[in-house]
Amino acid sequence: MSNFIIVVYDVHQKRVAKVLKTCRKYLHWVQNSVFEGEITPANLQRLIDELNSIIDPEYDSIIIYFFRRKAYTERRILGQEKGGENYFI
Amino acid sequence: MSNFIIVVYDVHQKRVAKVLKTCRKYLHWVQNSVFEGEITPANLQRLIDELNSIIDPEYDSIIIYFFRRKAYTERRILGQEKGGENYFI
Repeated sequence: MSNFIIVVYDVHQKRVAKVLKTCRKYLHWVQNSVFEGEITPANLQRLIDELNSIIDPEYDSIIIYFFRRKAYTERRILGQEKGGENYFI
Repeated sequence: MSNFIIVVYDVHQKRVAKVLKTCRKYLHWVQNSVFEGEITPANLQRLIDELNSIIDPEYDSIIIYFFRRKAYTERRILGQEKGGENYFI
């Protein structure tokens, strides 16, 4: 069963491109440093392993929020909608 | 009844300090450009009004995810935990 996750990252500039590319393989880009999407447990583990191999754990931070499904009741955008996917339920 | 929200912002450098200061009034900082916390409907409206008065809607983007309560089942951190609050349930 898939999880819905939101990933936010705060990593050194020199590792941003790799983190971005890795997240893009599995998730939808929604904003600078923010991705979201449904992901299978197997792909989630791949994502985590790949991110752990990229980041410097003494410096960088990545937070993954887990939800059982597209659980948020609303996503409100102030200003520009930058990403292309909608997940309103 | 309070909502639990996650706020992520992607705004021009010259407006970051104001957005940061406004979010900090109502929420907990968890990472660069990311805040979360419980908020009453009245304070949520204040937060939205204040953010709308700061941002340039043609350039900036702020996403607010709404949850009925602290709805995420897990928050996993890769690397550093930068914010001070924990919201595991």
